[in-house]
Amino acid sequence: MDERLKQQMAFALEIDKEKNVFRQTHLSGHGRNENDAEHAWHMAVMAYVLREYSNQKIDIARVMLMCLIHDIVEIDAGDTYAYDEAGKATQKEREAAAKERIFSLLPPDQKEELAAVFEEFEANETAEAKFVRAMDNLQPLMLNDSNGGGDWKAHGVSAKQVYERQGRTKDGSEKLYELTDRILQKNIERGSLPE
Amino acid sequence: MDERLKQQMAFALEIDKEKNVFRQTHLSGHGRNENDAEHAWHMAVMAYVLREYSNQKIDIARVMLMCLIHDIVEIDAGDTYAYDEAGKATQKEREAAAKERIFSLLPPDQKEELAAVFEEFEANETAEAKFVRAMDNLQPLMLNDSNGGGDWKAHGVSAKQVYERQGRTKDGSEKLYELTDRILQKNIERGSLPE
Repeated sequence: MDERLKQQMAFALEIDKEKNVFRQTHLSGHGRNENDAEHAWHMAVMAYVLREYSNQKIDIARVMLMCLIHDIVEIDAGDTYAYDEAGKATQKEREAAAKERIFSLLPPDQKEELAAVFEEFEANETAEAKFVRAMDNLQPLMLNDSNGGGDWKAHGVSAKQVYERQGRTKDGSEKLYELTDRILQKNIERGSLPE
Repeated sequence: MDERLKQQMAFALEIDKEKNVFRQTHLSGHGRNENDAEHAWHMAVMAYVLREYSNQKIDIARVMLMCLIHDIVEIDAGDTYAYDEAGKATQKEREAAAKERIFSLLPPDQKEELAAVFEEFEANETAEAKFVRAMDNLQPLMLNDSNGGGDWKAHGVSAKQVYERQGRTKDGSEKLYELTDRILQKNIERGSLPE
């Protein structure tokens, strides 16, 4: 096998491990915890179906790719829960080391290409990154809402904390932020999210 | 919430169930069985990284989308193992009913759009469909090979059966079929695949 294909296949096999990184979110129907690979798949399909609601024109291929790879660094760095402030303090450093190791399995041109897509997501400045961020918020919100808000209750998260995070959805999609706001208000009313 | 967004979100929530459809393939490191959502995610990332090996020019956005949705019908129809001849006899019918039910959750224009992508995959005539088919073969082959061919051994599958299925990879990528052939020969030599 030539060296280039060998490197590409080494990367392809390595990322299989993302299926073993579990998140705090539970599957619908009060299911088990979700893993990162499933979450990325779900976000990418939702991004395609909901693309008309992006505030700005987006390159949907880049959006889907960004959804698919945005959590690959968690193979080494682990999942950092959105409301884990201690974990978030070291998240950048852990993820930078992971990015270097995992994308370096690829041929140099593809390492550069995929690392750039990941960095674009992190920087949250382009239309594509902002829409992916909206998906990264809306997908677990949808699941948690379908389960009566159990994930927030389990972690003692407040409405203020959730609004801080979910507020960024507005940068990607005003329309989906309206939906987000309605879902959060419903959960406050039913006592799943303490004010 | 307006009717269109409501339909889109109903579809988004429904497809969460794809994470509960388990395949015969096992994760690398002799892990648990893989589910359809993870498999689709893995195929889409591999399609992006390996796109240079497609025999024909491909629209990578359509390829990724096709990877992501090609198994959604299995929410109702279940996974049919590649070498289950009895299951394959009823597969088309079960999957047609599932396609109708699940894609009908979407607004009519999106139902038509996504059903067409699924049908294109099934027909296996376009460059995109053939490349997705190659990924649908190569991804589980890679995992099974990494585990010493245990999935073939568990099901008593022969080299002839595997070559029949994996042979279709050639229509999408001559280069990746060369790799496939090398992997299969290695497994025949080590006794994982009886001739």
